[in-house]
Amino acid sequence: MSFNTFGHMFRVTTFGESHGIAIGCVVDGCPPLLPLTNEDIQRDLDRRRPGQSRFTTQNTDQRSKDYSDIKDKFRPGHADFTYEAKYGLRDYRGGGRSSARETASRVAAGAIARKIVPGVNVRGALVQMGPHKIDRDKWDWDEIARNPFFCPDKDKAAFFEGYLDGIRKKGSSIGAVIEIVAEGVPAGLGAPIYAKLDGELAAALMSINAVKGVEIGAGFGAAELSGEENADEMRMGNQGVSFLSNHAGGILGGISTGQPVVARFAVKPTSSILSPRRTVDRKGADTDILTKGRHDPCVGIRAVPVGEAMMACVLADHFLRHRGQVG
Amino acid sequence: MSFNTFGHMFRVTTFGESHGIAIGCVVDGCPPLLPLTNEDIQRDLDRRRPGQSRFTTQNTDQRSKDYSDIKDKFRPGHADFTYEAKYGLRDYRGGGRSSARETASRVAAGAIARKIVPGVNVRGALVQMGPHKIDRDKWDWDEIARNPFFCPDKDKAAFFEGYLDGIRKKGSSIGAVIEIVAEGVPAGLGAPIYAKLDGELAAALMSINAVKGVEIGAGFGAAELSGEENADEMRMGNQGVSFLSNHAGGILGGISTGQPVVARFAVKPTSSILSPRRTVDRKGADTDILTKGRHDPCVGIRAVPVGEAMMACVLADHFLRHRGQVG
Amino acid sequence: MSFNTFGHMFRVTTFGESHGIAIGCVVDGCPPLLPLTNEDIQRDLDRRRPGQSRFTTQNTDQRSKDYSDIKDKFRPGHADFTYEAKYGLRDYRGGGRSSARETASRVAAGAIARKIVPGVNVRGALVQMGPHKIDRDKWDWDEIARNPFFCPDKDKAAFFEGYLDGIRKKGSSIGAVIEIVAEGVPAGLGAPIYAKLDGELAAALMSINAVKGVEIGAGFGAAELSGEENADEMRMGNQGVSFLSNHAGGILGGISTGQPVVARFAVKPTSSILSPRRTVDRKGADTDILTKGRHDPCVGIRAVPVGEAMMACVLADHFLRHRGQVG
Amino acid sequence: MSFNTFGHMFRVTTFGESHGIAIGCVVDGCPPLLPLTNEDIQRDLDRRRPGQSRFTTQNTDQRSKDYSDIKDKFRPGHADFTYEAKYGLRDYRGGGRSSARETASRVAAGAIARKIVPGVNVRGALVQMGPHKIDRDKWDWDEIARNPFFCPDKDKAAFFEGYLDGIRKKGSSIGAVIEIVAEGVPAGLGAPIYAKLDGELAAALMSINAVKGVEIGAGFGAAELSGEENADEMRMGNQGVSFLSNHAGGILGGISTGQPVVARFAVKPTSSILSPRRTVDRKGADTDILTKGRHDPCVGIRAVPVGEAMMACVLADHFLRHRGQVG
Repeated sequence: MSFNTFGHMFRVTTFGESHGIAIGCVVDGCPPLLPLTNEDIQRDLDRRRPGQSRFTTQNTDQRSKDYSDIKDKFRPGHADFTYEAKYGLRDYRGGGRSSARETASRVAAGAIARKIVPGVNVRGALVQMGPHKIDRDKWDWDEIARNPFFCPDKDKAAFFEGYLDGIRKKGSSIGAVIEIVAEGVPAGLGAPIYAKLDGELAAALMSINAVKGVEIGAGFGAAELSGEENADEMRMGNQGVSFLSNHAGGILGGISTGQPVVARFAVKPTSSILSPRRTVDRKGADTDILTKGRHDPCVGIRAVPVGEAMMACVLADHFLRHRGQVG
Repeated sequence: MSFNTFGHMFRVTTFGESHGIAIGCVVDGCPPLLPLTNEDIQRDLDRRRPGQSRFTTQNTDQRSKDYSDIKDKFRPGHADFTYEAKYGLRDYRGGGRSSARETASRVAAGAIARKIVPGVNVRGALVQMGPHKIDRDKWDWDEIARNPFFCPDKDKAAFFEGYLDGIRKKGSSIGAVIEIVAEGVPAGLGAPIYAKLDGELAAALMSINAVKGVEIGAGFGAAELSGEENADEMRMGNQGVSFLSNHAGGILGGISTGQPVVARFAVKPTSSILSPRRTVDRKGADTDILTKGRHDPCVGIRAVPVGEAMMACVLADHFLRHRGQVG
Repeated sequence: MSFNTFGHMFRVTTFGESHGIAIGCVVDGCPPLLPLTNEDIQRDLDRRRPGQSRFTTQNTDQRSKDYSDIKDKFRPGHADFTYEAKYGLRDYRGGGRSSARETASRVAAGAIARKIVPGVNVRGALVQMGPHKIDRDKWDWDEIARNPFFCPDKDKAAFFEGYLDGIRKKGSSIGAVIEIVAEGVPAGLGAPIYAKLDGELAAALMSINAVKGVEIGAGFGAAELSGEENADEMRMGNQGVSFLSNHAGGILGGISTGQPVVARFAVKPTSSILSPRRTVDRKGADTDILTKGRHDPCVGIRAVPVGEAMMACVLADHFLRHRGQVG
Repeated sequence: MSFNTFGHMFRVTTFGESHGIAIGCVVDGCPPLLPLTNEDIQRDLDRRRPGQSRFTTQNTDQRSKDYSDIKDKFRPGHADFTYEAKYGLRDYRGGGRSSARETASRVAAGAIARKIVPGVNVRGALVQMGPHKIDRDKWDWDEIARNPFFCPDKDKAAFFEGYLDGIRKKGSSIGAVIEIVAEGVPAGLGAPIYAKLDGELAAALMSINAVKGVEIGAGFGAAELSGEENADEMRMGNQGVSFLSNHAGGILGGISTGQPVVARFAVKPTSSILSPRRTVDRKGADTDILTKGRHDPCVGIRAVPVGEAMMACVLADHFLRHRGQVG
């Protein structure tokens, strides 16, 4: 029911606004005696922190910014129109609760969640920017930390450098697709109907700012497959059942199979752009708007550690719920 | 927390299994004095009912079927492997709680939900089968009721007739994409963070059997767009703010804009096919399996009224929650 | 959030009204492979079933009853006034969802719950009727099944026979106090703040029809005790820590101690009585009302198995939640 | 499901421990544009603040205290035994999450809740200390602020001064009963079954530290009444239906009647006393314990503003839920 909490047994409640004095989260339902250090959390926070390259802008000047141009106008594609429609007010400076700053709390919670499912390893990667997809044959997890895009394809990362600079310089923006992979997830997490592991992953990933689509395994591609192509065949391996493919993305009937859980989500381009767009103001008059100052040319980049955190939280929650019900 | 309930203020709890003596649902949180007749519910149930064409098979013979071939084997791409991994048992005949039969309860609940948001109209359509997408310029809602595919494109529906017959005759199956459109949704439903309207739609649609992806508005296509292309510009119209496009799918920052809410979901092909697939049995031996008897060549077809129901339920829930919080 | 569901991991949703065609419940979150027979459930239902003595009346004639005298009047002390105030309608025949008939569903769910916590034994007793309390020195659990009052004090049960006959014959009614004792509850169930075992027991027992008070252990009597008297001293016993008294009622800081969990609740007298009482009708005119026909002189009697069921459900829920969080 | 959250639509999540660096709460679900100042919250916090008389001790020295005597012993009647049984650790200094310090967060949340139901007025009073009950004929709400006991009976307050000094000086403690009265509650809040207003009040009040019993209206006294005595008769008054008594405590069938909502709760004496008590230590050896230093002779006193806050929160939650469902 809650508007600012997610999860069931492992629950996270976040607080604070873009320009408030603090943000944070309350993590509830943790198993006791969980080994945990500040470094465990800081490491993930650092990966999300903006301002580490010219592609993810600093927030340091956000208080001094002049917002007079936009304070009475609605930005097309931005939440300020709906925020005001619902609550009768909005924070034109930074989006209030809608701010991407809130995702830092998710990352902190995710760092705790990672410790709950024994042996699980959750990693994310940017797999598409604009129309440009990575070459999956070149996937190298070690590349993720070597470029500012969390891109696992070295060559494509080099390409993105110039591509995104072009977008940035003209004050435009571009969308992206992020993939999150969780290895070491035991079979049996989830439930057949309304606590499906994929259903809750979908909600969790869709709740990240600017996300417009979520898919599991073959995802929308599964619509184009025949039953013969889509079904993942099985053979006995050394360590139990071995699947010959993973179109299911590690989830069948809402329950984990033991294969890696694979989810992707699409992030739309930010609406803060330099080109003027047609809009209306709060008095109901037609006008134009353009957003000066800070621009994230591809907000999808920073969504990578946030997506990892949401995956980790959902898995931790289901691990505890499964242990509760099944023992 | 519940495994068999969805919704918050408007809540639905379903019960019953594929081969049990009854299925049904408990609908909780309805506003009092809601005008409602059996016909309101039956109308929607009839639209979902299988056996209305050769493309959605009857269930009448399901009790007499000989399951001896499959009772100790796991079907690739089917929930029986994970069901057994989780619970230590499974219903090899019909999937137990994982059965698509459960979706009849959702459709009944959806028929009630449709009455809660004044003026809302929720409709669904099949927009892709296998690699074949409809022509959106030929979209005609009246066509939906005239073909067995809920297809709004008359020409494509004619094509699907032969296409799906071919798949059916060789005992294969194919995936599909379904689109649900809700018109008349007032601006303001949803919340900025963990009760996002799109987040809960994603969970609701992903919870339908065989769904592997959900998207809102431009969806995954938004990843390829620039900020200029993606943002829906605004102008004042006769009845308030008018948007010049709807890439947002009627939702910005998790809150409805007043435009039609547009969601799509991908349905994988059923794993019940005539071609033998490699698998393992419950004793851990390699074997092959093929599924004789009833085959739904495209289970996506029947997902159309189910998707409508889930959209209606999510909107009703958010309408009541919004009224509670904001008045 | 739900109005018709209780519990968190072990959840019960009930449906049906006093004069509807069916009542029932959906039990969610059960561990799989739980041994369970119809007899397990029927045994408890039989204990609650009305009409087993002249003190708990039959329901068989409830459909044919003439309600014309009361259909437009509000019964003092009855839910029909508030039901209509809230929903704009009421069921003057039997209370709709407020009917005590609903408690049969709770008893069925409780029969399942009893099987979840290994070794737990939940029993209830009537310990007070009107001003007459039992003699606790004469407590004999075996007496419970030998009298129509679930009374553990043989002598007091004999007294109640005449006492309640007097009340019944003059068409009056009387209140009662019920005590529920759960033995074999492991230490550690509950939580320190908002999932306190006693907090959830209080809600569960207060939700039984006509209950006006709930207490744990020494309860309201603790208000009169000094710290020296109230604290339960500890000594090492053969099987771990042994408490020298149980003023805590088996719960300290919201968490079970391993001692028997002891709860009591007060049941008010039913408002269906033969003496005319002053009231108003639906048109807003002053009038009098008296309730002919069936009368339960002490509705507290039937609350005994219902109280047991609620205790069993709360314990099962906390057992599963504890196992989830702590392992 | 949550362990540290209460409420459904108006939700409160608290955080922090007795000796942690901060405590606080997140309030979720508030209607927007609620007028609210720091003073609104501080006023209630000041009423709960310890150290305002010699009967509610200061916390200022709590960090410097020497806990060596108790760090390996369990205090009889204290949560440290169960805390350790559940989590495998405890905070012997202050109870961790079990600390009464946590109730400051509740009071802050309650100050917000008071503003949500228009016209509601929630007040509390100490009505019994040890065996000594106030004289209800002398009830004067204005007296509450004039004595350190929140006692509405001037004469009894004078008596309590000497009575409690005697208890304090010998290092003992005593229980109390608190009554909370909410005036101006509209008819219709609550629900007939598992969202009963009294059921949720019972959970909320029982969740306050040291509470062992909760009752509504006539409460346990109702067990001694006849149906004629207990039912509150009705007559038409100038402003609608008028009740001639309030044994129901403003709640019938789980729904508010429009009369004042009246709840009472019993607070046990604190277990921190100077007299040695028999106990065991963490190694499983018999020992004795006595608690030096700070002693609250009657912790019930400070429970008055906490009880008010819990009542206010429950009413706010039900007000919003009612508005959501019924409009």
